Amino acid sequence: MKNVGIAILLFAGLCCAQESGAFQPASTNVWGAEYPRVDSSGRVQIRVKAPDATKVRLNFWSGPKLDMEKQTDGFWTITTPPLVPGLHYYTFIIDSAEVSDTNSQAFFGGGKYTSMVEVPESGSTYYSIQNVPQGQVREIWYDSKVTGTWRHALVYLPPNYDTQIKVRYPVLYLQHGAGEDETGWIRQGHANFILDNLIAGGNCKPMIIVMAYGYARRAGQVPPDLTGKPFGSPEMMRSMQDMAAAFEDDVTQVLIPYVDSTFRTLSDRDHRAMAGLSMGGMQTFQITLNHLDLFSYIGGFSGAGGMLVLGDRKLDPKTDYNGVFADPAAFAKKVH
Amino acid sequence: MKNVGIAILLFAGLCCAQESGAFQPASTNVWGAEYPRVDSSGRVQIRVKAPDATKVRLNFWSGPKLDMEKQTDGFWTITTPPLVPGLHYYTFIIDSAEVSDTNSQAFFGGGKYTSMVEVPESGSTYYSIQNVPQGQVREIWYDSKVTGTWRHALVYLPPNYDTQIKVRYPVLYLQHGAGEDETGWIRQGHANFILDNLIAGGNCKPMIIVMAYGYARRAGQVPPDLTGKPFGSPEMMRSMQDMAAAFEDDVTQVLIPYVDSTFRTLSDRDHRAMAGLSMGGMQTFQITLNHLDLFSYIGGFSGAGGMLVLGDRKLDPKTDYNGVFADPAAFAKKVH
Repeated sequence: MKNVGIAILLFAGLCCAQESGAFQPASTNVWGAEYPRVDSSGRVQIRVKAPDATKVRLNFWSGPKLDMEKQTDGFWTITTPPLVPGLHYYTFIIDSAEVSDTNSQAFFGGGKYTSMVEVPESGSTYYSIQNVPQGQVREIWYDSKVTGTWRHALVYLPPNYDTQIKVRYPVLYLQHGAGEDETGWIRQGHANFILDNLIAGGNCKPMIIVMAYGYARRAGQVPPDLTGKPFGSPEMMRSMQDMAAAFEDDVTQVLIPYVDSTFRTLSDRDHRAMAGLSMGGMQTFQITLNHLDLFSYIGGFSGAGGMLVLGDRKLDPKTDYNGVFADPAAFAKKVH
Repeated sequence: MKNVGIAILLFAGLCCAQESGAFQPASTNVWGAEYPRVDSSGRVQIRVKAPDATKVRLNFWSGPKLDMEKQTDGFWTITTPPLVPGLHYYTFIIDSAEVSDTNSQAFFGGGKYTSMVEVPESGSTYYSIQNVPQGQVREIWYDSKVTGTWRHALVYLPPNYDTQIKVRYPVLYLQHGAGEDETGWIRQGHANFILDNLIAGGNCKPMIIVMAYGYARRAGQVPPDLTGKPFGSPEMMRSMQDMAAAFEDDVTQVLIPYVDSTFRTLSDRDHRAMAGLSMGGMQTFQITLNHLDLFSYIGGFSGAGGMLVLGDRKLDPKTDYNGVFADPAAFAKKVH
């Protein structure tokens, strides 16, 4: 045998099919991984090899931690109760170390690359790839004078963008939640497949979606030293406000001009939207309400509207967010 | 405090700056991670929290496993000897479980998402992003009749592809090594930045690069059960040959036509190249030598030329690879 190294790696991907009964390998597994596997009721079987460990727990973020059971072959195994359809984050806790499952693809969540298992939704096709005209996801890198760094973003372009070269498109800026990153709406969320399907069904106008990296620090600013500062301390709040303000400037002063000069956008406020999940919703409210000259559509999914702006006090509609809520009728006219 | 969940995740990214001396956080870390960190001599400091573990080792794939030292705060730490510049794969072995470092970005290698640390090359700029005209990396999904699945690939398009809409480009098919995947040449290899820099310096013709997923199984074929079959067994070799043949058909019958109909390529053999690393080199030799009607440039980097085709016997130039080596002069004329 020549080239043993290559062959070993190839072999790892081929070996070994096992009896799975009603359980099938999850769609979120890496090539060749038999575990995690899921049955039609949503139960998940997971295993991890740790022959010398004394305690291994499965940590599904959507539920309580579960003790895994040690087998004689050095694997720890578990079968979960039925989980609701969808994508579930999980980690292992092996002798107190919280780690990811090397059988799973890695998804950025909780501030790290972690594991997920998809429990399929029976009969559902809206978020999976279908035989319809496809958009494309592109990676862009833009040089931000705000942060002094090159920043990475993903951009979804709708079907036929390359061929209908006279057409310009509205733009949605779509932000991930805290602990996730610019890849989340595509990797976890399948936003590209959902848009392709919505557009094919006539349920959505073709649009460009820009997914930016939601963390930012101004050029030259040193990372804050929050050692010993308790959660919720003024120093911590200021750090979070600094980051949110840096991101606001990055989006409005650098990213939007970059996108409008790179892609065939409709660049007026009537064709620019922003939305986000959780922290991304918070950023959406801060950025859009401070820049109604740039945005006319606003979406917050579990968005934390006033956290950084207001802290513990109530909204003052006359002054907060540049007073955009002082005249509700005028605001309603400005925003779709 | 409202929205404690979001705030905790934000806080995790902010906290806590620490004394680092001459060591700086690696460029391969996730946002906010202080470790791994690297000094100018190439030494790397790494740590992992595992207060209840009894033995933790650092497994740099480029060197021997190193014992880490338990600290009173529950972290295990180590400072490595100087490492050569470049990107180094590593894992932790925590009480016998081999796991990735949640402080590192995740790179697909060894058949799983694993950790890497970049030791910078002093003064080197050729593989980092520079202020030159940029190409873009796009994700494509193509429906393969060979595998019966949607397959994901990355495509690098050179600078100005969107604006110079009359220009057509040569294409390089560039394959990853065993255990890696279609993302490797971009994530680990920075192929996009290297090409941008080469093109800007006039050292390379603008070209399209297609990076495909190198694993394939024919539609309807069940995964082989290699349980109990030793490494190098006929069953294992047949499985590997099956995969290589399925990939060959996928590339030549599906991927190339998809690329030529989706992008502005020069679609004759004189403008199509294939190259690959390790297993990707093996695939390159198999595919190009069997299809000289499609390819005129061939590149193998540590490529395992004959492994699957020849096994343990010597090359027979008269018959192997359709006899392309039977007439060396004729072969040399056909290939650039």
